[in-house]
Amino acid sequence: MKIGVLGTGMVGRSLSGKLSEVGHSVVVGTRDVTELLARTESTMGGRVGPFAEWHRENPDVKVDTFAGAAAHGEVVFNATAGAAALEVLRAAGESNLEDKVLVDVSNPIGSSGGGGLPTLFVSNTDSLAEQIQREFPRAKVVKTLNTMNASVMVDPQKLDGGDHHVFVGGDDASAKEKVIELLREGFGWQHIIDLGDITTARGTEMFLSLWLRLMQARGTAAFNVKIVG
Amino acid sequence: MKIGVLGTGMVGRSLSGKLSEVGHSVVVGTRDVTELLARTESTMGGRVGPFAEWHRENPDVKVDTFAGAAAHGEVVFNATAGAAALEVLRAAGESNLEDKVLVDVSNPIGSSGGGGLPTLFVSNTDSLAEQIQREFPRAKVVKTLNTMNASVMVDPQKLDGGDHHVFVGGDDASAKEKVIELLREGFGWQHIIDLGDITTARGTEMFLSLWLRLMQARGTAAFNVKIVG
Repeated sequence: MKIGVLGTGMVGRSLSGKLSEVGHSVVVGTRDVTELLARTESTMGGRVGPFAEWHRENPDVKVDTFAGAAAHGEVVFNATAGAAALEVLRAAGESNLEDKVLVDVSNPIGSSGGGGLPTLFVSNTDSLAEQIQREFPRAKVVKTLNTMNASVMVDPQKLDGGDHHVFVGGDDASAKEKVIELLREGFGWQHIIDLGDITTARGTEMFLSLWLRLMQARGTAAFNVKIVG
Repeated sequence: MKIGVLGTGMVGRSLSGKLSEVGHSVVVGTRDVTELLARTESTMGGRVGPFAEWHRENPDVKVDTFAGAAAHGEVVFNATAGAAALEVLRAAGESNLEDKVLVDVSNPIGSSGGGGLPTLFVSNTDSLAEQIQREFPRAKVVKTLNTMNASVMVDPQKLDGGDHHVFVGGDDASAKEKVIELLREGFGWQHIIDLGDITTARGTEMFLSLWLRLMQARGTAAFNVKIVG
């Protein structure tokens, strides 16, 4: 399948690398290709190396502008930082998203709240996924994979043999079907819960607050939730 | 141990009944004892029967005013509906809560949002538990048990042999120790995660949004989360 991935950070790289590895045609999108490939510095306190370095190890992933990646994809992943999501999607272009499945993996991480942890810039009565769906009504937005670390997203087996859950939410049933198939076949997810329409993204986005506290308490991001009962 | 429980709904009854059953001296508090015992109607669409009926089956639980229950308890549970929590605690009386462990089980359930589901009246940058701790600085507030249904709170074994998690958060380490012991010995919890200080209640309270969607999707409230990894 032709897939576009918007964003070249940890999430964008993890998704692109894995989808390409299992045989999809992947184009990852960035603001300025030349600038991205010229960068030599690491980010996130040294945890994320330069993109060019990653790209040498993942040469099958093509690099293009946001618009180029979106135009390429039958399915487009929004793997941007949440605060940049709408701006990046505008740059990708409404016509390049029309009638496509838009998989929103982002979280509305805002400025720092108490305890040094970020608060959400939208929550409770609205969600980032709903903002995206409202601004791009012809895209079929499916919220998923935003409740876990990038390394878990693309390799659920690494935790307890995959015995834990990922959620999907969205208004278009066939788009959710397509995403569920990608989660299963592309990433190896065995346990997928369809929460309902796009407003269910409020729940998965607000879960970030608990997720961050769990990460602090456990000292690792390599965990996930299993629904028991 | 002497325990006060504020609130006579499903949560208050479940906690009181179980704590009494395992040998604690429990007083459950209500606004107007005579009025409570005189009620004959069911609530919650018939799911919660009259209190007097429940009380006949749980005669060891004493009934008193909010102030009486709080005065009795070395440990006091706030099992009210979140919107009434502060008002009920004021009725219980600051002096009756002083230097006591105040176990906050409530959630800040507000008015209806999209999809007919309630939104939270406080979240993201603050929490109900923090509001309570600020208003009653001499109480040692511990947030716990607010991420699951009442029937699961007091009988974790009923789901997967108890192989799932409950969270605690609070500023006072010895108060958390006491609550963790009650969770273990009183209710049979095997897996308890200390998230940190009282601001971690933002995370567990905001989880309600996902919990409600999960309840809708699964058609039952009898579930819980296990942290895997």
